Amino acid sequence: MATQVIVLNGGSSSGKSGIVRCLQAVLPDPWLALGTDTLVEAMPASMRVSEGGIDFAPDGEVTVGPEFRRLEAAWIEGVAAMARAGARVIVDEVFLGGARSQRRWQQALGDLPVLWVGVRCDGAIAAGREVARGDRIIGMAASQADLVHRGVRYDLEVDTAHAESMECAVSIAARVG
Amino acid sequence: MATQVIVLNGGSSSGKSGIVRCLQAVLPDPWLALGTDTLVEAMPASMRVSEGGIDFAPDGEVTVGPEFRRLEAAWIEGVAAMARAGARVIVDEVFLGGARSQRRWQQALGDLPVLWVGVRCDGAIAAGREVARGDRIIGMAASQADLVHRGVRYDLEVDTAHAESMECAVSIAARVG
Amino acid sequence: MATQVIVLNGGSSSGKSGIVRCLQAVLPDPWLALGTDTLVEAMPASMRVSEGGIDFAPDGEVTVGPEFRRLEAAWIEGVAAMARAGARVIVDEVFLGGARSQRRWQQALGDLPVLWVGVRCDGAIAAGREVARGDRIIGMAASQADLVHRGVRYDLEVDTAHAESMECAVSIAARVG
Amino acid sequence: MATQVIVLNGGSSSGKSGIVRCLQAVLPDPWLALGTDTLVEAMPASMRVSEGGIDFAPDGEVTVGPEFRRLEAAWIEGVAAMARAGARVIVDEVFLGGARSQRRWQQALGDLPVLWVGVRCDGAIAAGREVARGDRIIGMAASQADLVHRGVRYDLEVDTAHAESMECAVSIAARVG
Repeated sequence: MATQVIVLNGGSSSGKSGIVRCLQAVLPDPWLALGTDTLVEAMPASMRVSEGGIDFAPDGEVTVGPEFRRLEAAWIEGVAAMARAGARVIVDEVFLGGARSQRRWQQALGDLPVLWVGVRCDGAIAAGREVARGDRIIGMAASQADLVHRGVRYDLEVDTAHAESMECAVSIAARVG
Repeated sequence: MATQVIVLNGGSSSGKSGIVRCLQAVLPDPWLALGTDTLVEAMPASMRVSEGGIDFAPDGEVTVGPEFRRLEAAWIEGVAAMARAGARVIVDEVFLGGARSQRRWQQALGDLPVLWVGVRCDGAIAAGREVARGDRIIGMAASQADLVHRGVRYDLEVDTAHAESMECAVSIAARVG
Repeated sequence: MATQVIVLNGGSSSGKSGIVRCLQAVLPDPWLALGTDTLVEAMPASMRVSEGGIDFAPDGEVTVGPEFRRLEAAWIEGVAAMARAGARVIVDEVFLGGARSQRRWQQALGDLPVLWVGVRCDGAIAAGREVARGDRIIGMAASQADLVHRGVRYDLEVDTAHAESMECAVSIAARVG
Repeated sequence: MATQVIVLNGGSSSGKSGIVRCLQAVLPDPWLALGTDTLVEAMPASMRVSEGGIDFAPDGEVTVGPEFRRLEAAWIEGVAAMARAGARVIVDEVFLGGARSQRRWQQALGDLPVLWVGVRCDGAIAAGREVARGDRIIGMAASQADLVHRGVRYDLEVDTAHAESMECAVSIAARVG
């Protein structure tokens, strides 16, 4: 059955966005790319700095509040509906809650054919890339590198510490039904 | 009945995004802001320059192809599903097809309580703002200023040539049930 | 004598950047646009949040430290040297120190022909535009609206609360020798 | 004698900007980062698409016209003046003219202590990263990978195909006097 949704999960600065753009370039059909960043940008500016929204601790740890979770739940339903309405969708996610986050998506996606991809990157290397990007809160990369993969089950894992974005994209595309 | 979706329609550089951010700031509840720009950014880079996607004529006229329409239809379904799942959503749209574009949204939104807002801006003024923004294809503002409102019916219209974004937002917020 | 440098001074969200882009579009020769934003982006990320660099108080007040002043002094010398080497330059500035800031530029620019332009915008209106932009620290607009003009002498003043960026640019361009 | 200027030269998508940000983070003093991108952004929008400015061929080849060269010459003088006025400056450059481009900088920098760094990246790998970035004209990376190094002499070369930005920065920083 043709893959309808690709979910990429990885920590901040693990290289997900680069893989997503390469995937969109190498996959023969047009895929929509949506993800945590899209959702966060869609939220009111005030929620991007607490008020029941997102909270960034000085060490880069990220926690999200109940208002964030409520909007996120509706967002996930909507993305699933897009896939059901025929769009092929790549979801670029940061599973702060590990297995629990994956379950939220599984419930919404139901029996849609999904390819689950883990994007790994050694925490120290991701921390260096975070500095190189220059626009990220320092500490997120190290804090999330392992955390987001806890208990999550994948069809495929890629490691951006040892492969270029394009290589990762090509190996993921090879698994797309 | 409480408004669940606010649809803002206006031409390029008419000032929709500024109104949306002000609306998110003045409305008491958190609203998600999604729109044409979100959709276009989610598409493969190749579709942002034709290939059945978006085409920009030298005079700024924008036309979209069948692949764009297919993804857009699924996108609209998904945004409607987010609203049905409980998210309050502000949709920032450019109705290139006028009344036809509105109909697409009406069908997807069904009986959700929607506030339809027209964002007007004199074409010459919008064209000046397009230059001032510096990152837009010149000609879009003038080309779309009237076009996008053809046959569209609104609950409320605002005019950014004569009112600041914040004033427009406040008058829209006053109509939100 | 032909104007070689245009210095625009105004508070945050007063509309300087828009005027600069319009000026570049309406002036017959190519002008380089440089300013406080260029300098701040050129600094190390760590200096953009204190460490002798820039400090943003919770109310939007901005103060800069000694390291910032040292780099800024060299920056100003360099921009003056570009003008002396033949480039026409538009400088987009925020005179946090009012007349004292202007003096720094006057000393560096020496006898280069300069057009000094004040960009005014009522503080409350600028504060609304700050919200509409969505990417600025709230409070800067109100805090700087009057402050930056204290004791500064202009050849020309424009007011973006009552004129579009393009209109302001056209009136400035008319004064360029 | 203390290094006052670091010039990094490399093709598009070779990873210069990431190294620059890491350098700013690891060097003990504050360094200003300026480069081709800063210059291009400072130019009128019209020059970024020809009119004697920059021209992008469909295959990504970049050529610059006489107006660009005139402004660039003044820009280089100005950056040299900043260094002479005491700022430590990292210059992030694309030597489209190879040795000739280097000579332009050498003449302006005179006897300032400069560290010349070549940033290499295999053309095919850079081309993949260009796709991953998503905001670059496709073809520039491949077209510039070797071209920009022709006849250029370096104190040090780094290769981002085989080392992370942070590693490259650390090895460059070790050579800063």
